[in-house]
Amino acid sequence: MPNIQFLKPNIQFLNPDTLGRPIAPYSNITRVKASEFLFIAGQVGMDKSGKTPADFDGQCVQVFANIGAALASQGASFANIVEFTTYLVHSQDIPKFMAYRTREFPRLFASGAYPPNTLLMIDRLVQEQFLIEVSAVAAL
Amino acid sequence: MPNIQFLKPNIQFLNPDTLGRPIAPYSNITRVKASEFLFIAGQVGMDKSGKTPADFDGQCVQVFANIGAALASQGASFANIVEFTTYLVHSQDIPKFMAYRTREFPRLFASGAYPPNTLLMIDRLVQEQFLIEVSAVAAL
Amino acid sequence: MPNIQFLKPNIQFLNPDTLGRPIAPYSNITRVKASEFLFIAGQVGMDKSGKTPADFDGQCVQVFANIGAALASQGASFANIVEFTTYLVHSQDIPKFMAYRTREFPRLFASGAYPPNTLLMIDRLVQEQFLIEVSAVAAL
Repeated sequence: MPNIQFLKPNIQFLNPDTLGRPIAPYSNITRVKASEFLFIAGQVGMDKSGKTPADFDGQCVQVFANIGAALASQGASFANIVEFTTYLVHSQDIPKFMAYRTREFPRLFASGAYPPNTLLMIDRLVQEQFLIEVSAVAAL
Repeated sequence: MPNIQFLKPNIQFLNPDTLGRPIAPYSNITRVKASEFLFIAGQVGMDKSGKTPADFDGQCVQVFANIGAALASQGASFANIVEFTTYLVHSQDIPKFMAYRTREFPRLFASGAYPPNTLLMIDRLVQEQFLIEVSAVAAL
Repeated sequence: MPNIQFLKPNIQFLNPDTLGRPIAPYSNITRVKASEFLFIAGQVGMDKSGKTPADFDGQCVQVFANIGAALASQGASFANIVEFTTYLVHSQDIPKFMAYRTREFPRLFASGAYPPNTLLMIDRLVQEQFLIEVSAVAAL
């Protein structure tokens, strides 16, 4: 299985040959051995002071900054993420989400391997201004 | 980190200063050390006999009664919850959901600390009559 | 509690008498004791070569074939699943999803006990052609 990448002793991201290869920066499977986990509530594009960029890309940047801050508060980093779930309000933003990840994920995930993500288009988030929300699970 | 609250030895709810403070009864992060978990299927507002209140508030009450019953069946309580995901069909019900939690969560969560929740507006649930569904993960 | 079914030493599917009995092939609760987990990204009805059946039933078959392949790649099977989340684009497909499970789950889950599932109708998946997506968590 040459496409296993070892990030930390406990987390492997896997794309077995029996599944189609992901066409975006994510993996099909995380295999994780851990007894301590973080559950991070869905993060939106609002910063600590309550400001939210109007544009999708600005919200994306803030969402992942928030997740990074949540991880950092526990001494963790994006290398600890085992699962993302991403909710978009507008399908027109899918290409922008793809572009954001292609541009930024190699910096956030230094290993070059990316956690599983499930991408869903839904009606609305808690406030109408929010265009993207991402929840995450991490292993310590 | 003064805003850590210890519920049980194994579950901490955290709101680091680098994130905006939650404006509702939830926390940004759960940190949990456990080797035994409950995964509770999304619960709707139907009681054991098949009856479902027509109104949102009545369904809310039943949803959390169902989750409480699921927890109690395993000797657990709301103090064991590590994550909620909440699905609403109508965004007009968001204020009612906020009001329900403000009113009832202090009773359900005696510690005064609340688990992460991701709140999503979707098209529909399994039957048209259902206005809210909540899934949960708990740690034992 | 006569309605506990033991699948493996570590995974129990439970339907306590205090909750309504599931009207489809799923259980209300998984109780799992494990320190190794698989997080499987939402699978759609596309096969390894990039082909996607146009019809819902064909997509269902492929979705669960993909999940089965993900499990098999780690030496696991459907007996290791602890949670499903299912997203449908059209509520008209709910009866087809029920029919698929009634027909196929007894074969996939030889024990006759089924993991919790949360069934949600959303706007759209990553491509317009996809009618169903299922994400899963498994314990090893």
